[in-house]
Amino acid sequence: MTAEDKTMKHKVGFLGLGIMGTPMSANLLKAGYPVMVYNRTPEKAEPLVKLGAGLASSPRALARAADVVIAMVTGPEALQNLLWGPDGAGGAFNHHKVFINMSSVPPRSTRDLARELEPTGVTFIDAPVSGTKQPAADGTLIILAAGPQDKIQELEPLLLAMGKKVVLCGPVGQGSMMKMFINLLVGLMMAGFAEALNFGKLGGLSMEAMLDTVFSGPLNCGMFQVKAANLLNNTYPAAFPLKHMTKDAKFIVDTAFELGAPVPVGQMILHLCRLGVAQGWGDEDISAIAKVLEHLSPKS
Amino acid sequence: MTAEDKTMKHKVGFLGLGIMGTPMSANLLKAGYPVMVYNRTPEKAEPLVKLGAGLASSPRALARAADVVIAMVTGPEALQNLLWGPDGAGGAFNHHKVFINMSSVPPRSTRDLARELEPTGVTFIDAPVSGTKQPAADGTLIILAAGPQDKIQELEPLLLAMGKKVVLCGPVGQGSMMKMFINLLVGLMMAGFAEALNFGKLGGLSMEAMLDTVFSGPLNCGMFQVKAANLLNNTYPAAFPLKHMTKDAKFIVDTAFELGAPVPVGQMILHLCRLGVAQGWGDEDISAIAKVLEHLSPKS
Amino acid sequence: MTAEDKTMKHKVGFLGLGIMGTPMSANLLKAGYPVMVYNRTPEKAEPLVKLGAGLASSPRALARAADVVIAMVTGPEALQNLLWGPDGAGGAFNHHKVFINMSSVPPRSTRDLARELEPTGVTFIDAPVSGTKQPAADGTLIILAAGPQDKIQELEPLLLAMGKKVVLCGPVGQGSMMKMFINLLVGLMMAGFAEALNFGKLGGLSMEAMLDTVFSGPLNCGMFQVKAANLLNNTYPAAFPLKHMTKDAKFIVDTAFELGAPVPVGQMILHLCRLGVAQGWGDEDISAIAKVLEHLSPKS
Amino acid sequence: MTAEDKTMKHKVGFLGLGIMGTPMSANLLKAGYPVMVYNRTPEKAEPLVKLGAGLASSPRALARAADVVIAMVTGPEALQNLLWGPDGAGGAFNHHKVFINMSSVPPRSTRDLARELEPTGVTFIDAPVSGTKQPAADGTLIILAAGPQDKIQELEPLLLAMGKKVVLCGPVGQGSMMKMFINLLVGLMMAGFAEALNFGKLGGLSMEAMLDTVFSGPLNCGMFQVKAANLLNNTYPAAFPLKHMTKDAKFIVDTAFELGAPVPVGQMILHLCRLGVAQGWGDEDISAIAKVLEHLSPKS
Repeated sequence: MTAEDKTMKHKVGFLGLGIMGTPMSANLLKAGYPVMVYNRTPEKAEPLVKLGAGLASSPRALARAADVVIAMVTGPEALQNLLWGPDGAGGAFNHHKVFINMSSVPPRSTRDLARELEPTGVTFIDAPVSGTKQPAADGTLIILAAGPQDKIQELEPLLLAMGKKVVLCGPVGQGSMMKMFINLLVGLMMAGFAEALNFGKLGGLSMEAMLDTVFSGPLNCGMFQVKAANLLNNTYPAAFPLKHMTKDAKFIVDTAFELGAPVPVGQMILHLCRLGVAQGWGDEDISAIAKVLEHLSPKS
Repeated sequence: MTAEDKTMKHKVGFLGLGIMGTPMSANLLKAGYPVMVYNRTPEKAEPLVKLGAGLASSPRALARAADVVIAMVTGPEALQNLLWGPDGAGGAFNHHKVFINMSSVPPRSTRDLARELEPTGVTFIDAPVSGTKQPAADGTLIILAAGPQDKIQELEPLLLAMGKKVVLCGPVGQGSMMKMFINLLVGLMMAGFAEALNFGKLGGLSMEAMLDTVFSGPLNCGMFQVKAANLLNNTYPAAFPLKHMTKDAKFIVDTAFELGAPVPVGQMILHLCRLGVAQGWGDEDISAIAKVLEHLSPKS
Repeated sequence: MTAEDKTMKHKVGFLGLGIMGTPMSANLLKAGYPVMVYNRTPEKAEPLVKLGAGLASSPRALARAADVVIAMVTGPEALQNLLWGPDGAGGAFNHHKVFINMSSVPPRSTRDLARELEPTGVTFIDAPVSGTKQPAADGTLIILAAGPQDKIQELEPLLLAMGKKVVLCGPVGQGSMMKMFINLLVGLMMAGFAEALNFGKLGGLSMEAMLDTVFSGPLNCGMFQVKAANLLNNTYPAAFPLKHMTKDAKFIVDTAFELGAPVPVGQMILHLCRLGVAQGWGDEDISAIAKVLEHLSPKS
Repeated sequence: MTAEDKTMKHKVGFLGLGIMGTPMSANLLKAGYPVMVYNRTPEKAEPLVKLGAGLASSPRALARAADVVIAMVTGPEALQNLLWGPDGAGGAFNHHKVFINMSSVPPRSTRDLARELEPTGVTFIDAPVSGTKQPAADGTLIILAAGPQDKIQELEPLLLAMGKKVVLCGPVGQGSMMKMFINLLVGLMMAGFAEALNFGKLGGLSMEAMLDTVFSGPLNCGMFQVKAANLLNNTYPAAFPLKHMTKDAKFIVDTAFELGAPVPVGQMILHLCRLGVAQGWGDEDISAIAKVLEHLSPKS
């Protein structure tokens, strides 16, 4: 990055202002980037407008005004709509612009998207994130970036306004693949934690002693520490909603099917997540999988 | 503990000199305890004898000489044999002595054992450990102690010669239950880690980038750090042998059955562990579960 | 069977008068065998006494009076108690007598039992049955007989008073193994039937059209025909109680573990059965597994 | 059907001449229907041309010449191609014609297809079949017909030239749903049969005694009878290839996901099928799932 780059910050357009997009665009603003935002329900843009963001009237208007367009939405359908729907951003892409998809989508969708974007000339970076609500707010996300390496490195300062680390994953599609990998592990560990604690409780152990044991040894990890409070209090405010984990788990299992990869534990996790959604807990946090285990336990 | 206790260290008898028992009794020796050892195959005692341990001719001889008898063997059958077999330790127990079982056995076995021990008058402490070969060597095990709380506290210095922390788990049986809880989580996380990495590899990701992603975020934990080298090198020297994990997983699933506790993920882990044993990998490390996932993957 | 056999019928002692034992001993009486019965709760013997059975005061009294002692109880514990408990039948066994265990127990229990029986000199036949309440009443059970082949053939007329066919399974233990085999298939098919019908219902199909499709094709079988009424009416009167299927599924999974046999579907069935028991449906029919699938379905 | 209809048989166009399509169109010819056929690889049409079929140069040419167009291909992609690809049949559809899709596709694909077909005016019948190679040859398939009931009844004679029974399933989409239902049950029973037999074999039972037990009792069904020979001989000539079962199992699990339907056993079956495909057995019969169980068993 030259000195000029440092003064002439990229004009950023941010599509999608949900649990993740709102704090991420706020962090871009705080880092001094000019940011224009768009969301299907425009009220969600208000806090960002107060922080200095511009409000675009359509995805295309946003894409026209920005050098770097970022999307952070809930899946392939929402993404397709923003890019290729009425007044979609895709119509304003050209070879001077960069498009960074940070949404979780299956690798196949990303590769399909790359083919669709190719005729526009836009530089496409596939860069989903590892981390949920709090790391998004703290700017400590891990950015799983795939695509042209020189362009990713050029944009690293911008990416690091939202995260603490950029992992280079390979060609376009591999960012999405890395996201599937890490979310598979998230789901496995969250469900495993919930299942083990439910087992221990039914066996008469106290939550406190179990957590003490986990936290004192080699299984201790940040996620368990963060989620333990939910499990102790039996309240599950959404940092990563169960319905999103369920959607991601389905992407993972579908991707595994295409690859021929065995995911026997992963598909059990999908089953458990789906049970939670079926019970009406989809908007609660992923840690509400503890309620699924309770639902499967003897009625006391 | 009186001042006298502090100077007059307990005479310890240690039954079972496997992967765990050998370093644990060595640490007791290093801490200054007089230790007498016994093992079914006496050659295993040699290194400890060199460190100053006495060698007992039978479990009963050991129990006669010791104040505190510790057992660290591979399961309920081995334990029964040492206690109640020919020249078994049980025959020398009385109300002046303490028996600490540190072996992994199901809670039901521990409660049965407590009933069998009651007529001898011995104080029974149920204290399995969390941690494998290296923490046993380093004296950083977590001791999951259950039984009379005053006695556990009195013996804490002795326990802390082998570990870094004592977690009080409740009445006798709850140490074993806590061990089941933590080993369920160990199995779930190890299998999950292996499954996710195998999935990622089949999807074209590099091991290095995947590990970097895991280690940078909230899923990072000591166990993954320790086991990553095995997975990278595809060699699995046993710190915690797969056959022992399989045995523990069976205890867990059996205990869950008695409790009515749902362990859908746990029983899948048992299935995967058992596949590994069936392939002849039972003596390799638990991380060899990675080989099970490969065995289930497309032939390349 | 010679003319002499026809006139000199074996004196039969029948231990255990539950869902199965009552109609089985009634069929022995109808076939002209002198039958003495014993049950822990003696009121259950009344209908049989009316049919001409003698009532024994204890298992031992029964075993003294009978040539052929049959047991049909709920598992290894009940069996142990009748044989070796106070006034147990085992105390009256000798080399003039035959003991036929028709209860479902794991092969290992049967082999252990054979060792325990050996000193008494009794001829031991391991002969569980395939079939539930109605076939027991109709005398159309399949007898899965293992042990000395000449003795089984000699007793075939007696066995065929209770069933329609005797399958020779091999040495003692293999009758129990065959029972595990066939009950694994029962569990798999019942759970599969319930899962598929629940899936179809959620997809908008009518039960009638689904059953019509099944019954017209190569999946049509007697069990589906018999159980369909329960599923249509959503009432589950016990022919084979879910709690007994759960117990058998546990024996199967335990036996598979000992054998190293993969039973990934079987252990899922055990999980589903157990969920039903946890919900309080253990005394309903095995077909109540349909309620488990509903419990896991979206709340309507 | 009027007398005129009986003499003036519908002109049939048949798309797709695989394992199923070839005998089905042969049966239409035998029943006296004029049949024109099309297949991507035209050599497969030769036997039918010998039987009197016309050979169409393209799907569109076929659709122009026929009153009733039938498709029997391997999935949604193949179907899309035949209808909407270059010279696709869809371009020749109009309100005088009937299109019957007999291929296995997910209900969602069928409903999407109905929307795509609507503008053409064609009458669309969704009519997959239950049954494989032999019933297709024997004309004993079960036709799972959905769509306008009067039209299905009018075409019943034509459908019954290929099958022995027509089940009315409801509006368009429900034929596909019924197919998913019945194939879920096929997969569950086939995998269950294979798993139970493998378990029994490892436990020392003979295949003959196990099959005798199954065939004598209420689990006996046509499919087990047909598949037993494959399992006995350990050869798996494809009547219903494992890769097709795997594809259908994926459709089923995807459909279940959309419905929120729990299919814990079904997803295990998908896992097992996929393991078989990964081992290179996709072109063998579905009963080759027995080889998957062996692959998971202890090495002998």
